[in-house]
Amino acid sequence: MLANVLLGKTQCVMVPAVLSGNVLVFPQEGSHWVNMRVLVEELHSRGHDVTVIRAADSWYISQTSPHYQTVTLDVAFGANESFFPPFCGVLENTHSSSCLWGQFEQTVKGFEMLEKASESIKWLLDNKEIMQSIKDTNFDLILSDPVAPFGAIMANYLKLPLVFNVRWTSHGEGHFEIAPSPLSYIPLMGTQFSDRMSFFQRLQNVLTFGFMKAQLAWVTIPSYDDLIKKYLGPDIEYTSLFQAADLWLMRVDFVFEFPRPTMPNVVYMGGFQCKPAKPLPEHLEEFAQSSGEHGLIIMSLGTFIAELPPDLADEIAAAFAKLPQKVIWRYKGAKPATLGNNTLLVDWMPQNDLLGHPKTKLFVAHGGTNGVQEAIYHGVPVIGLPLIFDQPDNVRRLEVRGAGKVLDFFTLTEEIFSQGIQEVLHDPSYRTNMQRLSRLHRDQPMKPMDTALFWIEFVMRHKGAAHLRTESYKLPWYSYHSVDVVLFLTATVLLIILTIITVFKYLFTKVCKRKVKHD
Amino acid sequence: MLANVLLGKTQCVMVPAVLSGNVLVFPQEGSHWVNMRVLVEELHSRGHDVTVIRAADSWYISQTSPHYQTVTLDVAFGANESFFPPFCGVLENTHSSSCLWGQFEQTVKGFEMLEKASESIKWLLDNKEIMQSIKDTNFDLILSDPVAPFGAIMANYLKLPLVFNVRWTSHGEGHFEIAPSPLSYIPLMGTQFSDRMSFFQRLQNVLTFGFMKAQLAWVTIPSYDDLIKKYLGPDIEYTSLFQAADLWLMRVDFVFEFPRPTMPNVVYMGGFQCKPAKPLPEHLEEFAQSSGEHGLIIMSLGTFIAELPPDLADEIAAAFAKLPQKVIWRYKGAKPATLGNNTLLVDWMPQNDLLGHPKTKLFVAHGGTNGVQEAIYHGVPVIGLPLIFDQPDNVRRLEVRGAGKVLDFFTLTEEIFSQGIQEVLHDPSYRTNMQRLSRLHRDQPMKPMDTALFWIEFVMRHKGAAHLRTESYKLPWYSYHSVDVVLFLTATVLLIILTIITVFKYLFTKVCKRKVKHD
Repeated sequence: MLANVLLGKTQCVMVPAVLSGNVLVFPQEGSHWVNMRVLVEELHSRGHDVTVIRAADSWYISQTSPHYQTVTLDVAFGANESFFPPFCGVLENTHSSSCLWGQFEQTVKGFEMLEKASESIKWLLDNKEIMQSIKDTNFDLILSDPVAPFGAIMANYLKLPLVFNVRWTSHGEGHFEIAPSPLSYIPLMGTQFSDRMSFFQRLQNVLTFGFMKAQLAWVTIPSYDDLIKKYLGPDIEYTSLFQAADLWLMRVDFVFEFPRPTMPNVVYMGGFQCKPAKPLPEHLEEFAQSSGEHGLIIMSLGTFIAELPPDLADEIAAAFAKLPQKVIWRYKGAKPATLGNNTLLVDWMPQNDLLGHPKTKLFVAHGGTNGVQEAIYHGVPVIGLPLIFDQPDNVRRLEVRGAGKVLDFFTLTEEIFSQGIQEVLHDPSYRTNMQRLSRLHRDQPMKPMDTALFWIEFVMRHKGAAHLRTESYKLPWYSYHSVDVVLFLTATVLLIILTIITVFKYLFTKVCKRKVKHD
Repeated sequence: MLANVLLGKTQCVMVPAVLSGNVLVFPQEGSHWVNMRVLVEELHSRGHDVTVIRAADSWYISQTSPHYQTVTLDVAFGANESFFPPFCGVLENTHSSSCLWGQFEQTVKGFEMLEKASESIKWLLDNKEIMQSIKDTNFDLILSDPVAPFGAIMANYLKLPLVFNVRWTSHGEGHFEIAPSPLSYIPLMGTQFSDRMSFFQRLQNVLTFGFMKAQLAWVTIPSYDDLIKKYLGPDIEYTSLFQAADLWLMRVDFVFEFPRPTMPNVVYMGGFQCKPAKPLPEHLEEFAQSSGEHGLIIMSLGTFIAELPPDLADEIAAAFAKLPQKVIWRYKGAKPATLGNNTLLVDWMPQNDLLGHPKTKLFVAHGGTNGVQEAIYHGVPVIGLPLIFDQPDNVRRLEVRGAGKVLDFFTLTEEIFSQGIQEVLHDPSYRTNMQRLSRLHRDQPMKPMDTALFWIEFVMRHKGAAHLRTESYKLPWYSYHSVDVVLFLTATVLLIILTIITVFKYLFTKVCKRKVKHD
């Protein structure tokens, strides 16, 4: 077990574990931590020792917990200041048009944040005391979210098995890293296409893929190059660090995701965080019951969007105010002027319990994977107000299946919002379709969480899962795609044709000459 | 439940099933039926009604069984006479060289048999009484082995969900039909390559793929064309019948198979037929115990090869005779002249129980999927004497992992066989590797049989598994491979370049003309 090597103090008490593994977790912040924590707590409850690496100024990952110990990196990620405020900026400045610029700005800020995170990793790898302590702990595996490559870097550095808890990597949707992904029916993240695309959608998909590859080659890889070359060696490729993962625990399933090629070391655990609803706190239960036959609408825009520009909040509140339904809205901003009596603003809400409440008719959500999976689990149709990352694609997947409707945040008015709500509430197909998805999702031989834990422990037991992982990524691209073989075959065929032509020409000339002589 | 519509008589008594589905099984003969029967019996024991379609002259599928009812096709497949005797012919005539011709001959015979089977299907589809009875039964799904397309044809005809119990289809290894299969690391059936190929192996693999595709296009598809067009309609493609299957229950897992791309509707049930060993019959137990510390060798060449050419049998028996081990050999031919006292010839043996016996040190096998999976399950190293179909590839998979050794049937002598046995018995790596495979194979969250049954019943509950099945196969090939998009992009780029060149040329000419004028 890792001694308390943190630079601060810990009061954590680890329950002695009889059959225990040692897991080193390299998480990401925000909603990514929200679902990683679910796994961490479950691992701990099964008797494993978990150590979480966190930044000194982490917003979400507390330094002390009864479920895990921490190694705190004494270099501020600066995440709080640099990354997420732009959201508000985007919404405030635009609520109309310049959102693309806002998103670009955000991406740049994101890279700045990751650059700072790179500094933290260098600090960690250079810190002999902590690194020795980590080595002495004999971790069984590293569990990481591959949004950044740090977990993969540590796994390579420490020669440890690597398990990903993943929806997307630093450079695209997770599957694109290891599974064949024909662009004709696998939509790129951000396109909001389904698996049935028109010619021009397929064209856009291919162009988006090119853009993704260019970003990977010209932005992402160079920004980590020094770090990788210095600490892992000159022969290590950025993408091979990801491809070397023993296991990919995907936070989706094929009720949510379009059917697509996959690999033997991909384990689908979509909805692993979902649980039957617990009873609500008394005041919420009372509020829910007061909705009568009209039922309840709940709204949350996720971890990062706790408040909105006042005019937008007013439009939303005004639409809610005119409904016969009751509304619970997770909102931390100033009370909107148009707020109706039927709408309860809360700082935080027990989302899973509310989604599982029989009165709940509709979920207004930003479309993060966690919320969408919970909505599927409980069979509640969704109005999506997506902003960035995978959110637009996530809610689009519900819309394609008739289980939700996507509205545009940047052109949202009271009227549009109101119409959307009426449609999803009163067209029964939304609920029917969502409940069909729910039935399919729940009909699995094992609970997704049990599946995930089985395979994490499998990796512990067998010190990896090499037999499930192809090593084909080690082939040069021209071999992988059989380009060399096709060129060789083409050359051979050409050579044969040329030889035949030459021989015939030669024979023809001979015959002609003889003919001339004879003549 | 299907009434007793067979053309013969049945005495079968179906146990009344409370929560019961109706399953129509379209099996294949021989070892394919051996493992299909395991599924059928398990389905029956879980309360489902199973109806098996069989040929009037079926060798293996009995007309009466406590586990299933039958529909007997009153058209002889003629399989007994036409298909399997050539094996003996091959071994007798060759045991040296002309085996390729033998295999070709066999393939031709195989097609002849399938042609006769086609006649049976036409007979069935034209038989109004039976077809009406089948329709009236309201089957929940068709379970079939896709070595022939008949189950798929029936599923399309009756608009029923389709589940395959599969290792290979009529035209190659099962995955090739639905999952992307990069030829750079996925060896074709029959090549005996591993997933790490040299350039010339990859070349051969691509050529083999071409051969397979040519055979499909010029032999297989035309031979079923009339049948499909007549009964299913002019727009139905042969391969789309397979691709439309809801579920592919693969008789492999990734302990046995090389890691490769797969699809959401592929369920791996390799080893589903394996069970812990039961006690041996008394005389076999006594014989096994008499082997003392040297242990037991068992040999079986599977369903079809019950006897061998006498000279070959003599070589094998002579090699066995010199061993201190005891040998149980499933052999129906005349007693070899060289048979030793340590070798027991048996007509049939409880293979699974013998493989699980602690005295068993080595399994000499032809390499059928069933036997190889049982060997993995029990951790017994293998000497492979493969003949045809997937057998050479199956035992090669063990050899690549150091868990078995492949010998060539056609050049086998007492000395070669003897050396092979000594090597596998006395080099401990064979046993160590096989037992590692066994540990990996047994470490699954659910038993393969339970997984298979769960998914069969899933298809019953949801009337298919459309959400797990891609429809991308409906795209024309040039769209699937984005050829149209690439051509469009290339044309666009060329057009832009041409336009630029034209404009520059035009401007240049203008400038030049002016210059000339000015001059």
